Amino acid sequence: MGEFEDICRRIKSVDIQGAQDIAKAAVRALMLRNDGKSVERLTSLRPTEPALRNAVLFARSNPRKIGPAAISHFDDSIKKIAEYGAKKIEDGMIVFTHCHSSNVVAILREAKRLGRKFEVYNTETRPLFQGRKTAKEIASMGIPVTMWIDSGARIALKDSDIFLFGADAITSEGRVFNKIGSEMFAEIADKHDTDTYCCTDSWKYDPVTIFGNKEPVERRDPKEVWKNAPKGVRILNLAFEGVHPECITAVISELGVHPPMVFLEEVRNAYPWLR
Amino acid sequence: MGEFEDICRRIKSVDIQGAQDIAKAAVRALMLRNDGKSVERLTSLRPTEPALRNAVLFARSNPRKIGPAAISHFDDSIKKIAEYGAKKIEDGMIVFTHCHSSNVVAILREAKRLGRKFEVYNTETRPLFQGRKTAKEIASMGIPVTMWIDSGARIALKDSDIFLFGADAITSEGRVFNKIGSEMFAEIADKHDTDTYCCTDSWKYDPVTIFGNKEPVERRDPKEVWKNAPKGVRILNLAFEGVHPECITAVISELGVHPPMVFLEEVRNAYPWLR
Amino acid sequence: MGEFEDICRRIKSVDIQGAQDIAKAAVRALMLRNDGKSVERLTSLRPTEPALRNAVLFARSNPRKIGPAAISHFDDSIKKIAEYGAKKIEDGMIVFTHCHSSNVVAILREAKRLGRKFEVYNTETRPLFQGRKTAKEIASMGIPVTMWIDSGARIALKDSDIFLFGADAITSEGRVFNKIGSEMFAEIADKHDTDTYCCTDSWKYDPVTIFGNKEPVERRDPKEVWKNAPKGVRILNLAFEGVHPECITAVISELGVHPPMVFLEEVRNAYPWLR
Amino acid sequence: MGEFEDICRRIKSVDIQGAQDIAKAAVRALMLRNDGKSVERLTSLRPTEPALRNAVLFARSNPRKIGPAAISHFDDSIKKIAEYGAKKIEDGMIVFTHCHSSNVVAILREAKRLGRKFEVYNTETRPLFQGRKTAKEIASMGIPVTMWIDSGARIALKDSDIFLFGADAITSEGRVFNKIGSEMFAEIADKHDTDTYCCTDSWKYDPVTIFGNKEPVERRDPKEVWKNAPKGVRILNLAFEGVHPECITAVISELGVHPPMVFLEEVRNAYPWLR
Amino acid sequence: MGEFEDICRRIKSVDIQGAQDIAKAAVRALMLRNDGKSVERLTSLRPTEPALRNAVLFARSNPRKIGPAAISHFDDSIKKIAEYGAKKIEDGMIVFTHCHSSNVVAILREAKRLGRKFEVYNTETRPLFQGRKTAKEIASMGIPVTMWIDSGARIALKDSDIFLFGADAITSEGRVFNKIGSEMFAEIADKHDTDTYCCTDSWKYDPVTIFGNKEPVERRDPKEVWKNAPKGVRILNLAFEGVHPECITAVISELGVHPPMVFLEEVRNAYPWLR
Amino acid sequence: MGEFEDICRRIKSVDIQGAQDIAKAAVRALMLRNDGKSVERLTSLRPTEPALRNAVLFARSNPRKIGPAAISHFDDSIKKIAEYGAKKIEDGMIVFTHCHSSNVVAILREAKRLGRKFEVYNTETRPLFQGRKTAKEIASMGIPVTMWIDSGARIALKDSDIFLFGADAITSEGRVFNKIGSEMFAEIADKHDTDTYCCTDSWKYDPVTIFGNKEPVERRDPKEVWKNAPKGVRILNLAFEGVHPECITAVISELGVHPPMVFLEEVRNAYPWLR
Repeated sequence: MGEFEDICRRIKSVDIQGAQDIAKAAVRALMLRNDGKSVERLTSLRPTEPALRNAVLFARSNPRKIGPAAISHFDDSIKKIAEYGAKKIEDGMIVFTHCHSSNVVAILREAKRLGRKFEVYNTETRPLFQGRKTAKEIASMGIPVTMWIDSGARIALKDSDIFLFGADAITSEGRVFNKIGSEMFAEIADKHDTDTYCCTDSWKYDPVTIFGNKEPVERRDPKEVWKNAPKGVRILNLAFEGVHPECITAVISELGVHPPMVFLEEVRNAYPWLR
Repeated sequence: MGEFEDICRRIKSVDIQGAQDIAKAAVRALMLRNDGKSVERLTSLRPTEPALRNAVLFARSNPRKIGPAAISHFDDSIKKIAEYGAKKIEDGMIVFTHCHSSNVVAILREAKRLGRKFEVYNTETRPLFQGRKTAKEIASMGIPVTMWIDSGARIALKDSDIFLFGADAITSEGRVFNKIGSEMFAEIADKHDTDTYCCTDSWKYDPVTIFGNKEPVERRDPKEVWKNAPKGVRILNLAFEGVHPECITAVISELGVHPPMVFLEEVRNAYPWLR
Repeated sequence: MGEFEDICRRIKSVDIQGAQDIAKAAVRALMLRNDGKSVERLTSLRPTEPALRNAVLFARSNPRKIGPAAISHFDDSIKKIAEYGAKKIEDGMIVFTHCHSSNVVAILREAKRLGRKFEVYNTETRPLFQGRKTAKEIASMGIPVTMWIDSGARIALKDSDIFLFGADAITSEGRVFNKIGSEMFAEIADKHDTDTYCCTDSWKYDPVTIFGNKEPVERRDPKEVWKNAPKGVRILNLAFEGVHPECITAVISELGVHPPMVFLEEVRNAYPWLR
Repeated sequence: MGEFEDICRRIKSVDIQGAQDIAKAAVRALMLRNDGKSVERLTSLRPTEPALRNAVLFARSNPRKIGPAAISHFDDSIKKIAEYGAKKIEDGMIVFTHCHSSNVVAILREAKRLGRKFEVYNTETRPLFQGRKTAKEIASMGIPVTMWIDSGARIALKDSDIFLFGADAITSEGRVFNKIGSEMFAEIADKHDTDTYCCTDSWKYDPVTIFGNKEPVERRDPKEVWKNAPKGVRILNLAFEGVHPECITAVISELGVHPPMVFLEEVRNAYPWLR
Repeated sequence: MGEFEDICRRIKSVDIQGAQDIAKAAVRALMLRNDGKSVERLTSLRPTEPALRNAVLFARSNPRKIGPAAISHFDDSIKKIAEYGAKKIEDGMIVFTHCHSSNVVAILREAKRLGRKFEVYNTETRPLFQGRKTAKEIASMGIPVTMWIDSGARIALKDSDIFLFGADAITSEGRVFNKIGSEMFAEIADKHDTDTYCCTDSWKYDPVTIFGNKEPVERRDPKEVWKNAPKGVRILNLAFEGVHPECITAVISELGVHPPMVFLEEVRNAYPWLR
Repeated sequence: MGEFEDICRRIKSVDIQGAQDIAKAAVRALMLRNDGKSVERLTSLRPTEPALRNAVLFARSNPRKIGPAAISHFDDSIKKIAEYGAKKIEDGMIVFTHCHSSNVVAILREAKRLGRKFEVYNTETRPLFQGRKTAKEIASMGIPVTMWIDSGARIALKDSDIFLFGADAITSEGRVFNKIGSEMFAEIADKHDTDTYCCTDSWKYDPVTIFGNKEPVERRDPKEVWKNAPKGVRILNLAFEGVHPECITAVISELGVHPPMVFLEEVRNAYPWLR
């Protein structure tokens, strides 16, 4: 099996994880083999990953020449996001977050590096407990962190000053698809006038939603929730939900800090090839 | 050790569980020994259980004579609650519930017995997964049931027609203390104009809150949430939260179906000794 | 056919209309014949009329002696409602109303009699145009009146200072069932902080709702909406909808001006036989 | 009378109806005679029709050459709107609509063609009953349709999954002027988190509102509401109301699916001559 | 001039201030002279003071015998209010208050006495700067206090945990009339889910509002706002505004801690002579 | 001391006031001396004045040539703002405003010149009473004006049709920083569906907020609030607060009438050098 096929297999089998690592791997594959069908092949591997699709589109006209720029895009972005986002964190704040987001972690690390004194509240994030990974990483930086069960989010949010979360996809309607729970928590945060930021690479924007396409929501294995559920008990294990843009103060991306409606224009102006 | 002491120990050690079973056991103990200190002793065993305290107060003047009435109160109540609540469930409905409540289960059983065709959405209810018990019981009655992770509640509620939950305590301000998550979900339900009923024996009312006393909220063992949490990760494991009365359509108790503000008057009229 | 049977027929055939006239006629019938079955017979004629049922219950123990009091109850009530309600209308106000309510008209008449300068906005109230009757009666008193189509209610309400409407039934949950549209308009009024009063005889309260019974909502003939609707077009012609108590500032009844939650207690205190 | 004059007369006398047919006729007239005054003449015929004004502005520099493009713009647009909008309709959905909109009907037709199984709830739309036209057209395509009186909209919307409506004009503030009732229903839909789409050709955008100009709202003949209203009864028969942009999920136009704030930028970018 | 007349004069001339001192003085006057006209005379001195009216009504049947009970009522009440209210204040809290209320000050003093560690945010309360009196009294007890201009209330409230205020009158609709600003601040507090308590003697309840009477709102001298306002500048100096009951968590009175709707019933049950 | 230094001193010492006069003075200084350090020097004089910074940035490449255009920018803007804003004011309206804004005054003057009949409600605006200046100016134009204490804003706004206010700075998140109270009043206005316009030169936009920078909020001298506050009373005298964009109908600037989200794009398109 060639290297191209090998990368495809590893993307498909979730051997490679995280929207950005997936996108970078796909560009590398495209740099290896760019015949007529490679683009289609690569983008079909993960239909719920706009970053993968956008990176391949960006590089496809001349992968060998443009590919490296696509790859470095992601590394540059996270640095900028960390820089911009860290300025939102002030001494004495409680930062709330849900699930695990590399961008959010990068922001917290940068804020800590700048000497800000703050603490973090986070959720355990059932069913896969990604919140434990988040809590561990934050604790290891020396930032005080308190973990809550997901259903404790209302109480945790009432005491928090800011809510940071990542994104899996952003639609032309400004809805941010992210780990299930995000919309419920953003709605609660909005009601209490808590600043809420989506921290994300702008390539998570999904341009085909302009034409009415729905963002797919993955239904995952019920066994993740309950391994030996008795017969007769159905389990609906949705991976994501769509956060309404009116609950989001701003999107913090490599393009700066922009409310969702402005972000949508900025991303199209910055990357006119995105379509 | 005498039988009185034995019951005390079993109540204290959570050998006996469920507000009603605890209250009934305490009355039985009081019937065995009613010297000056028994009342104080029994009510101090579980400071977060108004039903225990109220039942003991009710029976204390003459436990042997009045005790049986206190015990049968609980059995009569659940029958009435089942009868009144079942009328709220109509063909085609989706019923949402959180955690495990004997009264809610009794309502669903009665509705099923009456031939209503409906289905149930419930939460798994971290950290102790009481939702699994609920789902199992419901499925065993032949009612279709779908279980969600707690953070999926917003999506589940958007499709539901009615939200039923129990109560651990009700204050003079009309706040219903129940399993953490209840307030967040009731707030979401209220926003979507979903009828929300607290299904409870009225002896969960805590009369000392009239004098400003706060309802205590238990902080449970962090290990319930994460057995081997790494150092530096604090876990706040609150058992309850207080549901605002404006999010509750009505309380369904043995006294009938009354909005919280009317319930507060009804319970005081029905049980003038409650104080 | 005896006179009892004749009254029954006229109630059933909607020859007699208006909750109060129906209730008074039923009491008169009961005064004519009070064998075991009369009560059941009379209350079954109009299952959606709590006033009829309550009046019959009130008088049944001794119709000949108590009947006249039941009848005069309604006449006394409307006078008190007019007196209390008129004080809510001040110079310069715009009063919004929907459908036709004798109590609302009586309030407006009394306010006019007291010399208040105000105007009225009302809806035409499809499908039966009861709003035309309302507009005609108000205009004939010399009060300026502007009629709107039902879908103009939001604009009309934005300029109004107070919203008055009647009631067909009031449940133990404090929901007021009234002409369809009432809930939508009350919700809009509530959002704009417009005082909203339900003007009604308290005998519209339906005590069996305490036991969970649902208030029935009449589905009327589709031909009222569209006489010759083409095949394939279904028409749902609901007569009522239930106004949430939180959208109602107060109920103006013969018992005084009370928010719904207080009204529910007051009506039970005033008429302990109501059950 | 020349053909130019004849078209003007037919536009003025509402012989020609529908924003798009009016605009196309005006362009055809301009192609016949383009002296200095034709533009002014044509745009003054219907001051509440931005589409007419925009089409004439588009074509005026060289009507004979550009005119056909203006005309085909409208036909191309409706096809794209149908295509994009149909993707929003899923199996099992209830679609709510108000009044009659060619774009909404085109979307429903396309969704049906794609094999989607859904049903439609619509309003009768007083005073001119345009909802009957809508219901008839939808029923004739074999789509189940239920018609409601306008004041039944709250109940209808509570059960609906999506609300589609057209537009007469869109201002620089993002307010969509459409048939009276639209704002009230959009507000209710927004409160229940029901996706709400304005389906419209983007040339309904009115660029002079940038300079503070108010969108005129037609006051129509009171006789449309009540032919023989008695003296003293005033009738206010407004044709439109302005829907707040925050109640609109997105505008579906030939430019794609964009929230109002993005739509405003997109229309100005796509048609820089619009001013 | 007799002593009766002297007290009347001093009440009228605002020589005697504070609802409770006024009420006590009036009862003392009534104990001096209780002919037919004294009651009317005394209650007419301050038409916006229900406490005065209620105290006189309470004592009038036999002033010499019952008068002292009326007087001690107020002293007993404030002690109970302080005791109940102090339990609401916990370590670490920020307490927000507006204007000056003896009951609120008594609560803060009691909380301090109990050893609670908290701080207070208060408004300066234009135009008469009663907030300065409040701040001074609180500071003198050793409680940290921060004063804000009235328009800073939103920011102050966002950081506060609880809002305490007094009452001048409470209507049968549950509206609490208090210093202007109270409703605006209570609305903001309600939106942020901040517990809001009205701390008041229950004799502020105004029973004639049951019959529709409006609570009068005093228009005070414009010179209080601007001594030498230029011609052409009108000043509207309203003393009070009515706080909606849904913005009030509970009323803390000598009767206990009750939400407004329950308070209304409790006050009528406790004092059946109140009418 | 040279003229450059003199202007710097006068800007620093608030000898020169008003964002626009400050900006114009700074440009004049730059025209006098444009060595490497002048730009930095000038922009550091008033860190909370984006208009100063933007004007200097605009002119710095060639102050002598471009400077005059920067200066005339402000004069042209206010004329356009007056023209656009005046169209929003209709006969019979009540206009609410807070503090003092040259743009708002210019709009009112223009509306008056156009013959509109309206009146103005304004706040006194503690602690410096800028509202008195506003009231005086408006009264001198012959416009009826009523002044309220700041805490009367809720009542004043309930009767108002439109709320106009200025801006000190606008961030990339669309928050408008303006005199404290503005956010509280805009929130109340939004709840009552009152059109709310920020009237401002677009150079108040602060482009560095794109990179996450926080807009500084000045803490002014406590003595402005209370000259001789007793020891122990702390006074927090914040100058500004940030109005949420969702409470603002549109920004009226020299670029036209645009909702905040569109304004943010328009200002960047119109002035690409702004960064």
